[in-house]
Amino acid sequence: MEREHITASFDAELNDLRSKILTMGGKVELMINGSINSLVNRDSDLARQTIAMDHEINTLEVAVDETCLQLLALRSPAARDLRFVTLALKIVTDLERMGDHCAKIAKRAIELNDEPPIKPYIDIPYMAHWTEVMVKEALDAFVREDVELAGKVCRDDHLVDGLNTKIQRELLTFMMEDRSIINRAIKLNSVSKTLERIADHATNIAEMVIFMVRGKDIRHAADHS
Amino acid sequence: MEREHITASFDAELNDLRSKILTMGGKVELMINGSINSLVNRDSDLARQTIAMDHEINTLEVAVDETCLQLLALRSPAARDLRFVTLALKIVTDLERMGDHCAKIAKRAIELNDEPPIKPYIDIPYMAHWTEVMVKEALDAFVREDVELAGKVCRDDHLVDGLNTKIQRELLTFMMEDRSIINRAIKLNSVSKTLERIADHATNIAEMVIFMVRGKDIRHAADHS
Repeated sequence: MEREHITASFDAELNDLRSKILTMGGKVELMINGSINSLVNRDSDLARQTIAMDHEINTLEVAVDETCLQLLALRSPAARDLRFVTLALKIVTDLERMGDHCAKIAKRAIELNDEPPIKPYIDIPYMAHWTEVMVKEALDAFVREDVELAGKVCRDDHLVDGLNTKIQRELLTFMMEDRSIINRAIKLNSVSKTLERIADHATNIAEMVIFMVRGKDIRHAADHS
Repeated sequence: MEREHITASFDAELNDLRSKILTMGGKVELMINGSINSLVNRDSDLARQTIAMDHEINTLEVAVDETCLQLLALRSPAARDLRFVTLALKIVTDLERMGDHCAKIAKRAIELNDEPPIKPYIDIPYMAHWTEVMVKEALDAFVREDVELAGKVCRDDHLVDGLNTKIQRELLTFMMEDRSIINRAIKLNSVSKTLERIADHATNIAEMVIFMVRGKDIRHAADHS
């Protein structure tokens, strides 16, 4: 009975950890959405709200770290549970940095909203949509231990990388044609690159999930080919 | 006697972990140095050697992760030892990404070496020097549990950020004056920003060291002020 109680409580703690990480992921998705919409709709109030959300993500990071340390100290998890908790420790760092990146995009949006737009934003919202999908799917793959889904996230990263390259080339052409927009183009370039970094963090999570589930490391497989 | 044997072996394992992380750090320092020297001295062979080093860092990352998992599974470390091992798990991710960033700088160097230089490089090597110092000191702070040194690393980050801003402004002025250099200026901008990201990773490590030693989180203290 006592034993069952301990097991049930351990499962509850793991579920709590899982839920905290999904909450963080949900907030990151909202921040991606908010930061890009504040740019596209020239809504600097939304940008400021988005920046303020970063604080909630930071608080959750500290809570997840503490939960992981307590689980490791008091439960001595083994095998798959151990991999899950150590992965949570790593994932939370990626999520927290995604929040920082979204805040950075929102700051650029506020600056860009003070000046006339260079052109309608089409590729950047599309890139943001894919980045959001990647974050969501990377965390779904984590909680479901779904290697297939994690693999999809890694493949989708090429799409976001391709969009970033396309945006950078286009902005370069614009700058060549009109020097007066260089300052704004560099800021938009930074938005695009920052989105690409968020997608990289999602890919990092997906690669680590594959490592956790398969129990072997695919992260640097390309090094050996 | 048996107990002493186990303790001695546990200490040896922790020392091995420490030593693997310092080896990784040493390689990251070499990569920062190599990537920037390949740019400053227009030495694309050195750039290629630097890119090749990234593989060694990736291999060490896998080894550190495995060592940490084994320590957690077989030794059930407590208190400070537990914080040390979990911190090692996080630090190794930062070090691996620093290696990726150095490889990226080396790739930009190869491209830039194919074209005439915009101007002599002065601030970028200075920035690289400080970034190297930050990486070294962040890891020294980690192995010595030295909060003072970790605090210095966090403060030095402002210096690197300042240099990055200075370089970006200067490149913007150059681009305004001469459109033909825009492509090269954007690549140099990317080198500067990538160095700044490496310094950010060193700062992340330093902040986590302070957290480990003090047992409380200073990472988001600014959020509450």
